[in-house]
Amino acid sequence: MALSRFEYVKQFEQEEKLLPNCWVVVRIDGKGFHRFCNVHSFTKPNDLDALQLMNFAGMTVMQEFNEIAIGYGQSDEYSFVFRREASVYQRRRDKLVSYVASLFTSAYMFHWTRVFDSRSIAMSYPPSFDARAVLYPTDENLRDYLSWRQADVHVNNLYNTTFWNLVASGLSNADAEKRLQGTLASDKNELLFSQFGINYNNEPVIYRKGTILLPKSVYVKDKKQRLIVPIFDDLIGDAFWVTHPEILDKRAKTDDVFELAENLTQPIVLYQLTVQERRKAGHHKAETTKSVLETGSS
Amino acid sequence: MALSRFEYVKQFEQEEKLLPNCWVVVRIDGKGFHRFCNVHSFTKPNDLDALQLMNFAGMTVMQEFNEIAIGYGQSDEYSFVFRREASVYQRRRDKLVSYVASLFTSAYMFHWTRVFDSRSIAMSYPPSFDARAVLYPTDENLRDYLSWRQADVHVNNLYNTTFWNLVASGLSNADAEKRLQGTLASDKNELLFSQFGINYNNEPVIYRKGTILLPKSVYVKDKKQRLIVPIFDDLIGDAFWVTHPEILDKRAKTDDVFELAENLTQPIVLYQLTVQERRKAGHHKAETTKSVLETGSS
Amino acid sequence: MALSRFEYVKQFEQEEKLLPNCWVVVRIDGKGFHRFCNVHSFTKPNDLDALQLMNFAGMTVMQEFNEIAIGYGQSDEYSFVFRREASVYQRRRDKLVSYVASLFTSAYMFHWTRVFDSRSIAMSYPPSFDARAVLYPTDENLRDYLSWRQADVHVNNLYNTTFWNLVASGLSNADAEKRLQGTLASDKNELLFSQFGINYNNEPVIYRKGTILLPKSVYVKDKKQRLIVPIFDDLIGDAFWVTHPEILDKRAKTDDVFELAENLTQPIVLYQLTVQERRKAGHHKAETTKSVLETGSS
Amino acid sequence: MALSRFEYVKQFEQEEKLLPNCWVVVRIDGKGFHRFCNVHSFTKPNDLDALQLMNFAGMTVMQEFNEIAIGYGQSDEYSFVFRREASVYQRRRDKLVSYVASLFTSAYMFHWTRVFDSRSIAMSYPPSFDARAVLYPTDENLRDYLSWRQADVHVNNLYNTTFWNLVASGLSNADAEKRLQGTLASDKNELLFSQFGINYNNEPVIYRKGTILLPKSVYVKDKKQRLIVPIFDDLIGDAFWVTHPEILDKRAKTDDVFELAENLTQPIVLYQLTVQERRKAGHHKAETTKSVLETGSS
Repeated sequence: MALSRFEYVKQFEQEEKLLPNCWVVVRIDGKGFHRFCNVHSFTKPNDLDALQLMNFAGMTVMQEFNEIAIGYGQSDEYSFVFRREASVYQRRRDKLVSYVASLFTSAYMFHWTRVFDSRSIAMSYPPSFDARAVLYPTDENLRDYLSWRQADVHVNNLYNTTFWNLVASGLSNADAEKRLQGTLASDKNELLFSQFGINYNNEPVIYRKGTILLPKSVYVKDKKQRLIVPIFDDLIGDAFWVTHPEILDKRAKTDDVFELAENLTQPIVLYQLTVQERRKAGHHKAETTKSVLETGSS
Repeated sequence: MALSRFEYVKQFEQEEKLLPNCWVVVRIDGKGFHRFCNVHSFTKPNDLDALQLMNFAGMTVMQEFNEIAIGYGQSDEYSFVFRREASVYQRRRDKLVSYVASLFTSAYMFHWTRVFDSRSIAMSYPPSFDARAVLYPTDENLRDYLSWRQADVHVNNLYNTTFWNLVASGLSNADAEKRLQGTLASDKNELLFSQFGINYNNEPVIYRKGTILLPKSVYVKDKKQRLIVPIFDDLIGDAFWVTHPEILDKRAKTDDVFELAENLTQPIVLYQLTVQERRKAGHHKAETTKSVLETGSS
Repeated sequence: MALSRFEYVKQFEQEEKLLPNCWVVVRIDGKGFHRFCNVHSFTKPNDLDALQLMNFAGMTVMQEFNEIAIGYGQSDEYSFVFRREASVYQRRRDKLVSYVASLFTSAYMFHWTRVFDSRSIAMSYPPSFDARAVLYPTDENLRDYLSWRQADVHVNNLYNTTFWNLVASGLSNADAEKRLQGTLASDKNELLFSQFGINYNNEPVIYRKGTILLPKSVYVKDKKQRLIVPIFDDLIGDAFWVTHPEILDKRAKTDDVFELAENLTQPIVLYQLTVQERRKAGHHKAETTKSVLETGSS
Repeated sequence: MALSRFEYVKQFEQEEKLLPNCWVVVRIDGKGFHRFCNVHSFTKPNDLDALQLMNFAGMTVMQEFNEIAIGYGQSDEYSFVFRREASVYQRRRDKLVSYVASLFTSAYMFHWTRVFDSRSIAMSYPPSFDARAVLYPTDENLRDYLSWRQADVHVNNLYNTTFWNLVASGLSNADAEKRLQGTLASDKNELLFSQFGINYNNEPVIYRKGTILLPKSVYVKDKKQRLIVPIFDDLIGDAFWVTHPEILDKRAKTDDVFELAENLTQPIVLYQLTVQERRKAGHHKAETTKSVLETGSS
């Protein structure tokens, strides 16, 4: 059974390598999440737990690749931005795209019970995600990409918030849709306020802006540590980029300590701190590996 | 927050479409499975349950895509062969590769407890897989690809079987490795027989040949139904291809009913039959969707 | 001036290699040949000399690459079919496509005076061509590609023949176009016959079928030699492929000698014979290189 | 002869589009120019006429594409830098690479007699060139690419100048090669000076630096006009880029008039001026097309 007679088939592998010195965005998208949300009774228009679960999966991907400069999640999608100089898997497209999709999927499932146990939502069937890689040659192109995704969540969330309030008030889905046809953002803001007393700008920022993930040094109980930190902020304007210069320039001073403030209570922050506590306490002496995930089930 | 100002960034997506009329092999590979096997105490050199779990994941992928002609699994890898004319996702490379990787991963995790509960193996951390797509222009190239993978499992399994028997007999890993250096297949066969009384050809065929998955019509309790059937056979010689002409030629008569015989007791066969029974019994009236997976957890 | 500091820029070269075991068609197309034909007063709808010049360029390309199985030219385009196993430039796309375009262009210019001197047509400005590479996985796909090009010349030439006869009879271009709007092939055949006494099937076959180029062994003056031979034939039906089995199967018996018959007087045949005579006569002792082109200008 | 039955073969064309917003370098390389130079008795180590002919071909390419920011030629190669935003042929790789190769080739042949007639060098066989496209995401990468090519000509020309002086002094090629083995740049400079009285820095700058081509506004006889201007300068340092800001930034003020100075006598400048004179004089009333080339042969 000579292996060698067949080995020529390896030559048919044509693994594309992503152009050097470009930003690489890998974007994950949920497959058939409309149905997945229905089957698992996710709250409309936003289910905070489901979004937090996405953040757990995003956190896991960012822990695995230290060459990711920023992550950005909204709805059932997540974007991971690999640095221009990232050399992961020699920038092989298939490997990168498939592995990020797989890792995100498994982390999503792994943290399911952590998030949904209190609501007794069992997983009826496994979710899945696809992924694509897109290259951006300039910092401006990259910022515009992220702005595009954040503008998208704004447009969708304003619509969905109005739509589901109309439905909750008694309209059929079809009537709610008709009611919103042709309306501008200002119309929807006005409708929300006049009809439901809702000031859209007071809606939770995670719904309006999505979640930004950054690796940051933080102080917790007087100890400095590196965490993947969720940030809820506008990233379209310049202020965000001035505040976080290390995203575009990895040589920027990053010894600045990030102030967690109210984000200290974010689920993925609490989780990371718990894992580190446990590790320090020697619960996992046998397993001193890098992955933070391992400690999850004990 | 004008979406339109940023939408130009979509033009940077350069989704490659796979050449028409070629066989498309998507091969899944476990990431870091050496460690994953150790952490979860999988039996060496083969863990039957772990292989069956791979088959569950392979079954799920084949249920999702009716354009897969054949699946083939061995060790921590699985190959899925999409037909020449497959039009899934318009043959977009990123989508296909990432979605198969994600679906395989989630199915692997979803069926974990089904397979490992009796042994009380909890998942310590989530597994992940990468994937690649390779094109083969001719039937001969495709057969040689599958032969390459089956020759590979033969070479590896013969080595591993001998290696772990030597270790079990008291040799250190290093000594066992040294003992096998430069040995031919015949030497290893001889060593197994003379030293351990093992006739390699009597080793379980799933270890020696891997698992072939084919969609087949079968009779169970006098009822004809379509199942994803595991087959343990040599696929290097011609006999296999004569017996299963529908793989290479989708117009081949496929109304022949496949004889399950002893494969009736294979876990993924039993599982599929159970799901169909349940469905028939109306346990899942509310959910009459296509996915077989949904019924898993009830 | 350290070279090494800059050499990293080589890594940005991403030369695609064409999938192995596929037929590779490189098709040349004239750039702006509508104008080029007008400026150089080429006869409408077909200029025999201009077509013969295309054949000279086609011949040159086929002499350069012995991995071309068949060439096919019509109008201002030429297709070259590289064998499945062709290894030229390691199948690098950029190299192959650009070099064939360049070689075709230079041969076209080099033979210009040979063809046009008798008509005193000087080249007013240099012509140019673009090229593309297309892969075909099966013999059937390849035959359909060539049939597509030959069906194209039929459709165009029938139209053009009718159109220019109408114009010659006094119609304006616009009126001739209007006259032909919506007509079927049978209408045009009928119009040609009834109005101009032309039986389309008696038009020169090179206009109706284009030119096929094949490398063949021929007998000239009792001596066997290899030539690039122009053939004017239907290649859509099976007969052509039965007559020339070596195109699809390079192991087919090719020691059969091809009967030149009336093609002996084709310009590229006469040219090749002259070159070989000259070479034999030792006119070019100093230059015993492989290229047939060198002897052109003496 | 239904065209439609075969048209599906068009779907096999997989024309890659070059990533937006990257610099696109198309580099032309002479095929087998070692032999081409020998056959046509080009002077070693540099033949000024042959280099000027390359510049004529480079000029033609730059006249054709107004999206080329800079051209750079040395030895038998020429690089053309298309702007980030260039949209030529929708950035289709095959088209761009093949057409530039073809146009360069035909211009090289078209201007041959203009350059070589005085030396009575007839073209024995047609030259050819291949081409490749390479993408550079940043201005720095692009500058490093051009620096790489200019450093290359320096290294090669210093070697060749020394080598051919040694050969001219009586050494065999093999002995000259041996003499230079392991020598540094400083060694070669010293050898040239001590043995042949040559100060390398006084060698013609076109040999030492290659030719830069830029589109510039110039004043000739008090009339402002656009020309493709040859510049012989160091492009590795910053000074060049400060002097010609429009290369990297197309919005830079380009109404500055470039001072031709001694470059007024460069062959391609004289040629362009002659063509414009002729055109103005109405010699070519019939042909008022854009191409400057047409006037060449009258």
